[in-house]
Amino acid sequence: MEESRGEFAFIDWLRRRTPTAKRVTIGPGDDAALLDWSSGAGCIATTDMLLEGSCFVLAEAGPRRVGRKAMAVNLSDIAAMAGRPVAALASVGLPRRGGRAVAEELYQGMREIADLFDTPIMGGDTNSWDGPLVINVTLLGEATSLGVVRRNGARPGDWLLATGAFGGSILGKHLDFTPRVQEALQLHQAAPLHAMIDVSDGLAADVFHLCEESSCGAVLNAEAIPIAEAARAMNDGRSPLDHALGDGEDFELVFAVAPDDGRKLLQTQPISAVLLTQIGEFVSETGIWLAEEGVRRPLPPRGYVHALD
Amino acid sequence: MEESRGEFAFIDWLRRRTPTAKRVTIGPGDDAALLDWSSGAGCIATTDMLLEGSCFVLAEAGPRRVGRKAMAVNLSDIAAMAGRPVAALASVGLPRRGGRAVAEELYQGMREIADLFDTPIMGGDTNSWDGPLVINVTLLGEATSLGVVRRNGARPGDWLLATGAFGGSILGKHLDFTPRVQEALQLHQAAPLHAMIDVSDGLAADVFHLCEESSCGAVLNAEAIPIAEAARAMNDGRSPLDHALGDGEDFELVFAVAPDDGRKLLQTQPISAVLLTQIGEFVSETGIWLAEEGVRRPLPPRGYVHALD
Repeated sequence: MEESRGEFAFIDWLRRRTPTAKRVTIGPGDDAALLDWSSGAGCIATTDMLLEGSCFVLAEAGPRRVGRKAMAVNLSDIAAMAGRPVAALASVGLPRRGGRAVAEELYQGMREIADLFDTPIMGGDTNSWDGPLVINVTLLGEATSLGVVRRNGARPGDWLLATGAFGGSILGKHLDFTPRVQEALQLHQAAPLHAMIDVSDGLAADVFHLCEESSCGAVLNAEAIPIAEAARAMNDGRSPLDHALGDGEDFELVFAVAPDDGRKLLQTQPISAVLLTQIGEFVSETGIWLAEEGVRRPLPPRGYVHALD
Repeated sequence: MEESRGEFAFIDWLRRRTPTAKRVTIGPGDDAALLDWSSGAGCIATTDMLLEGSCFVLAEAGPRRVGRKAMAVNLSDIAAMAGRPVAALASVGLPRRGGRAVAEELYQGMREIADLFDTPIMGGDTNSWDGPLVINVTLLGEATSLGVVRRNGARPGDWLLATGAFGGSILGKHLDFTPRVQEALQLHQAAPLHAMIDVSDGLAADVFHLCEESSCGAVLNAEAIPIAEAARAMNDGRSPLDHALGDGEDFELVFAVAPDDGRKLLQTQPISAVLLTQIGEFVSETGIWLAEEGVRRPLPPRGYVHALD
C-alpha cells in the first residue's frame, strides 16, 4: 500500500482544498458527510452520471470541462425545481494510469461551477479501474418558502415560456453552460410557475415530458422559438429550427405560467442577461404540435433517449 | 424515439414499483426528488460507486446481488456514523444490449436490502453505454438526538471493540452482508461511542484510519480477533488471521469506547445475534501494532487501495 500514489493521498489533497462551509459539519474524510438542516426546509435531491464515450468525449472535452458539466447538469436539475443548491457529493471511476491528474482536473472543474453557487463538495468516492471515465454527482438543494416547481402543474391555456435560445449545444454549450439557478429563483419570485423543466433531452422531448406529467398538450410556435447561433452554425443539412427542437443539452428552462403572468414576465423581463420568450401554449388535447405559417402539425418528441433492450 | 424500449419505459416501470413513502414528497419522474426534512435533524450523506471488474464480477455475482451490495455499502457507511437511513438515489450505466433486464435485477437487489431499513429509492439516473456495468448509490440519513459518531474521537486507553468476525468475505459475505445499521443505533444508545468505522478496506487498514483521524495508535490483540469461518476456508497458504486483518469488505463495525463502557458492553452484549469482542486498545503513540504471544510488532495497514498515478 503506497499511500503516496493511492486514493488516500488524493483524499488528503481534496481535504486540503476543501474550504470550511457553514452548513457542512463533517466534510470529506469520514464515513459520511454531515450537513446542517436545522432550517427544516424540504430537501431536494438529484443525481446524474456522465459516462465517457456516451455523454462526453474525454479527448475533446478534457477532464476539467467534464467535471464542470457533471456538476452543472445537477445544478440545472435543482434550478428546474426552483430550488437553492446546498451541497454536493461526487463519485469517480478513474483510469489507473494518469488517474490522479484526471481526478484533480475533474475536481477543479466541479469546483469552478459549484463555487459560483456557493455549493460545497462535501464528500464522495474515489475508484480506479480499467474502464472508461465515469463521474457521478449528487446534489442536495432546499426548497424556498415558495415550495418547488414540479413538471405536473401546466394547465390548458397556460403560456409556454423559455429562457435563452436552443440548438447546436454540441458545439460547446453542452459543456460550458451556466445552469439557470438564479434565473429560476427570480422567476419563481416574479410569478407563480405552474410547471418547469430544464431542457436536456431536447426542447420538443422536454415539453412533451411537461405535457405528459400535466396530462395536457402543447402547441409550439415555430416562428417564436429562439434559435441559438450554434444551431445556425451546424451546417449539416438539417434546419436550425430542427436543431433547436431536437438537439437537447441546452440547459435552458421552459415553464408554464398563466397568460396574465406570461404577459407581465415578457414585459418586465425580470431576469438579467437572459431573454424570456413565449414559445407556445398549453392545450387540453394531449400531444405536442408545431404551428408554422398558420399550419399545425404533430411534432415527434425528438430528443436523446438512452436505449435499453 | 421508441419509448417502449428506452429509459423512459424503464422509469415508468420504476414508478409503478415505487411505493409511497411518508417522507418522499416527490419521487422518481420529476427533475429531482423532494424529501421532507422538517425534523431539522442533521443530514448524513454518503455515496459509493461500484464498477464491474473492479468491485464485482458480474458473471459471478449476478446483477441482483450487485444491486444489493451497492445499497448495502452505503447503509454500512450510515451505520458507521450511527445514523438512521432515510432515502436513496441510484445511478446506473447499463449495457445497451440486455440492459433493461440488468436494470430490473439491480433495482430488485437494491430494494431487497433498502426495504429492510425502510429506505425508499426516491430517484436516480438511467444511462446506457458500451462500457462495463457501473452503479452509484447515494444515501441520505439523519442523525439521532445523540448526534453522529465520527472517526476522530478515539483516546489513548480506549478499548477497541468489534462486531462479528473477519476475513474471507470474498467467498460471499462481500455481496450478501447485512449492514450493521440497527446494531450501531443500539450500541450508540448503550454507551458513548468515541469513534467508529465500518470495515471495508480491511481490519488493519480501517483501524489505522481511526488512529490517523484520532491522532493516536492502537494495539490489536491477535488472539482476540474473531476469525470468520470463511477466512479459515480460504486455504491459499495465508493464515486465517492474515485474512482477517487484510481482506476487507467485512462490513463489521469497529469502535472506541472508554474501558468501563467496554466492560459493560462485553458483559451485557446489548446487540442481538452479533457477538461483541474486544480486539485491542488505543495507545498514545501513533501507528498500529499486533500483539501475539506477548510480542508486539508493527502491523502494516494492509487493505484495498484504489491505485492512482
